[in-house]
Amino acid sequence: MHNQPHNHIVKSYDEELQRLTGEIVRMGEIAVYQLGAAIDVLDRRDSRAAERVIANDDAIDVLEHDVSHGVLRLLALRQPMARDLRDVLAALRIAAAIERIGDYAANVAKRTMTLNMHPPVAPARGLRTLADIASGMVNDVLRAYQERDADLARAVRERDAELDTLHTSLFRELLTYMMEDPRTISSCAHLLFMAKNIERIGDHATNIAENVWFLVHGEELQGERDKRDDSSAPAP
Amino acid sequence: MHNQPHNHIVKSYDEELQRLTGEIVRMGEIAVYQLGAAIDVLDRRDSRAAERVIANDDAIDVLEHDVSHGVLRLLALRQPMARDLRDVLAALRIAAAIERIGDYAANVAKRTMTLNMHPPVAPARGLRTLADIASGMVNDVLRAYQERDADLARAVRERDAELDTLHTSLFRELLTYMMEDPRTISSCAHLLFMAKNIERIGDHATNIAENVWFLVHGEELQGERDKRDDSSAPAP
Repeated sequence: MHNQPHNHIVKSYDEELQRLTGEIVRMGEIAVYQLGAAIDVLDRRDSRAAERVIANDDAIDVLEHDVSHGVLRLLALRQPMARDLRDVLAALRIAAAIERIGDYAANVAKRTMTLNMHPPVAPARGLRTLADIASGMVNDVLRAYQERDADLARAVRERDAELDTLHTSLFRELLTYMMEDPRTISSCAHLLFMAKNIERIGDHATNIAENVWFLVHGEELQGERDKRDDSSAPAP
Repeated sequence: MHNQPHNHIVKSYDEELQRLTGEIVRMGEIAVYQLGAAIDVLDRRDSRAAERVIANDDAIDVLEHDVSHGVLRLLALRQPMARDLRDVLAALRIAAAIERIGDYAANVAKRTMTLNMHPPVAPARGLRTLADIASGMVNDVLRAYQERDADLARAVRERDAELDTLHTSLFRELLTYMMEDPRTISSCAHLLFMAKNIERIGDHATNIAENVWFLVHGEELQGERDKRDDSSAPAP
């Protein structure tokens, strides 16, 4: 430990970083809640509730702005040492990823409003399974971030393959459904985008996981990259 | 002006910021090139060329990493004053937006490879018009960033409505095409996602424009927000 003033600066830096980590985790919890709410309104075909989910997304955007500013101000309290840069970069990137997750959840809610103008189609049920996996990934990666648990982060990344596989099979199911009954094409097209949104939430959880790994270990997580573009392949 | 050492720090900060701005603009130019190349491979049905576009995306990702690190190191040269925080935040956000634009361009290229397994469908031609507008927006917003031209940035944001309208009409055309000839459903589904990718490029150009405005004026650009989720509405 160093002299008193330096020590004081170090302490307030750590406290402030911890506070911001808490804010980021709360942002993430709101995003997970939003995804669950979006799937509920899909089931209930409740356009009013969908509007509330869409409106709630602003709260996440506002938090992301606050976190970004707070995190950057933090950097000025320190010399630019390797670990501090990693903390700051990770916080910024994770907050941005959560903001995107919130956008995807809001987009799912928004498309339910269009679906409600048409008769229900059966493959819509498949979205809940996708959403449950994606939510689980986001919850776990938030915990990995809060506890700086790189192994948990790696485990989250590995689950993304499962989500991709399920997404591919839902994609095919939707195409088949459209071919068998062209009257469902419009609804199924929206469901394709909703499924894709949820698959992208998994990509962002993976991206957060990679940031947690980098934060803890100071090097990139090796092995399979996140399958950001996989949905381009699954077509029959 | 202050004493010599301070002056020296200030100068190197400005020079470094200018260098990083140049890097970010170069990233953006690569992203625009990538989008054009993706549309060319769509026309030519050339899967080899598509693979090259996909591989090139790594160059943008590497640049984005470098820029993020460089920009954050910069902050340590200064006290955290308002304008500096704006510079740093804008650079980080703009680099991230360009990285996403590159991803979307690569995704368009990737989906052409699936399209090449099926007979061509006519509405594919509509993608070039969308891509031309999106590329023009990205080019102009890069210039707005380089020249700190807030009015040009605002003009870019206004063009996003035109892109959204065209996207909506291509979306409807594709759905109609699918309904009339269910054998095209798989190809058209990929074209829906490709059109959406290009529409999202316009959203990111708009996002960059808003960052340029904020950078110059220190306050948010008022009026219509970017229509990130509009694609949920256009279904018939």
